Amino acid sequence: MRTLKLTIAYDGTRFVGWQRQARGESIQGLLEEALASLEGSAVTVHGAGRTDAGVHAIGQAASVSLASPHRAATIMRAVNAQLPDDVRVTAVDEAPAEFHARFGAAGKTYRYLIANDAIANPFLTRFSWQIAEPLDVDAMRAGAAALAGTHDFAAFQSTGSATATTTRTLTRSEIRVEASAFPAVAARMLVYEVSGDGFLRHMVRAIVGTLVEMGRGQRDPRSMRELMAGGTRAEAGITAPARGLFLVKVQY
Amino acid sequence: MRTLKLTIAYDGTRFVGWQRQARGESIQGLLEEALASLEGSAVTVHGAGRTDAGVHAIGQAASVSLASPHRAATIMRAVNAQLPDDVRVTAVDEAPAEFHARFGAAGKTYRYLIANDAIANPFLTRFSWQIAEPLDVDAMRAGAAALAGTHDFAAFQSTGSATATTTRTLTRSEIRVEASAFPAVAARMLVYEVSGDGFLRHMVRAIVGTLVEMGRGQRDPRSMRELMAGGTRAEAGITAPARGLFLVKVQY
Repeated sequence: MRTLKLTIAYDGTRFVGWQRQARGESIQGLLEEALASLEGSAVTVHGAGRTDAGVHAIGQAASVSLASPHRAATIMRAVNAQLPDDVRVTAVDEAPAEFHARFGAAGKTYRYLIANDAIANPFLTRFSWQIAEPLDVDAMRAGAAALAGTHDFAAFQSTGSATATTTRTLTRSEIRVEASAFPAVAARMLVYEVSGDGFLRHMVRAIVGTLVEMGRGQRDPRSMRELMAGGTRAEAGITAPARGLFLVKVQY
Repeated sequence: MRTLKLTIAYDGTRFVGWQRQARGESIQGLLEEALASLEGSAVTVHGAGRTDAGVHAIGQAASVSLASPHRAATIMRAVNAQLPDDVRVTAVDEAPAEFHARFGAAGKTYRYLIANDAIANPFLTRFSWQIAEPLDVDAMRAGAAALAGTHDFAAFQSTGSATATTTRTLTRSEIRVEASAFPAVAARMLVYEVSGDGFLRHMVRAIVGTLVEMGRGQRDPRSMRELMAGGTRAEAGITAPARGLFLVKVQY
């Protein structure tokens, strides 16, 4: 047996999420089926992050053990030939036998796209949160910057989650404004980019919801520090829609 | 009664096309329903171009006569509130009583997107023709340039069409290469942009299919002139998929 690292991109719109579920199509399920038909027996794929229904990935990572003697490039081609066109394996690399995509992950980078134009752009519907009212980007920038560093993010964790600790370190938490022109319609995109050693359940979406409330003038950017000092989920902002979120990269 | 000019953008993926059909959702049908509920009686919307199933629009134009006394901006807001999020009215303007979006059109601009990367990009699936093999852009440029001017485009018209004349004037027919980064995945896009006084049925898609055969080295770019001098549809290239085509603008 050998261990492979897969890198996967997907449009998460129509899926129940990364993880295999009793009902509905999942990315993990599709990959396991495609690899099993190559391997001739059942295969388990471990993903680095369990993206929720509707969340996208540009660089999701996964590990799998295979007996197949084929070259990595051949495996990639064979798997892609079986996958629907909203899921693509973009790289297959040999990995050490003990490599595990989830337990081995040292950090992740997520991106969240907000399309901030008066008229919604029908081409960005699947890939962004469209907000018509002008947002105060400076307020959002200040709120985002306050999150960088090591903090207790309990206020940004979905209720019902159970993790040993809610302390995480964010090495980057930034908002930038980009002029998008895809596929030819000018759009004003607010791009939130965040990197950290780990993320609690729905954490990025709760952060973005809170930043948007700051952008709407409903919340003071300085309140971010209070949220990280014993704030509860109810005190933080709404959960931003899944459609704007992308898992960009997993660090090892 | 007053006449209004509507500008409409849509992701054409799930529609039967612009035109109302016996079955399936059409852009025309959705607009007529939204406007009828505002007007309180049946309404007919005339589109400038009958885009096919799967074809998108950035700036489709349409005309409609209404008794409604509301301001144009109010009508736009009310219609958008009723439309699904893959169709947006982006402008509503007062027009002369005799304005007719189809008969009055002086020309149209279309854009066709080809994503030319070894691995397909799941985020561009709906909006481009993805071709894995490297295309010879210079050959495609030469083929595209030969189309500019006044020519007989019969070879690029779907069989079964009946029009008085197959001569059209193209004022622009160009290929450019663009680095797209939407929504963060680098992509090499070949963008075909064409403007003309009129287009035959499936003409842009037949042109693009022919240009791609030139890009693949299967067809000499110089053969474009022969196609315009009495060539038949069978002698030109394949019809490119609808998903890459955008109606960009209608000139009046």
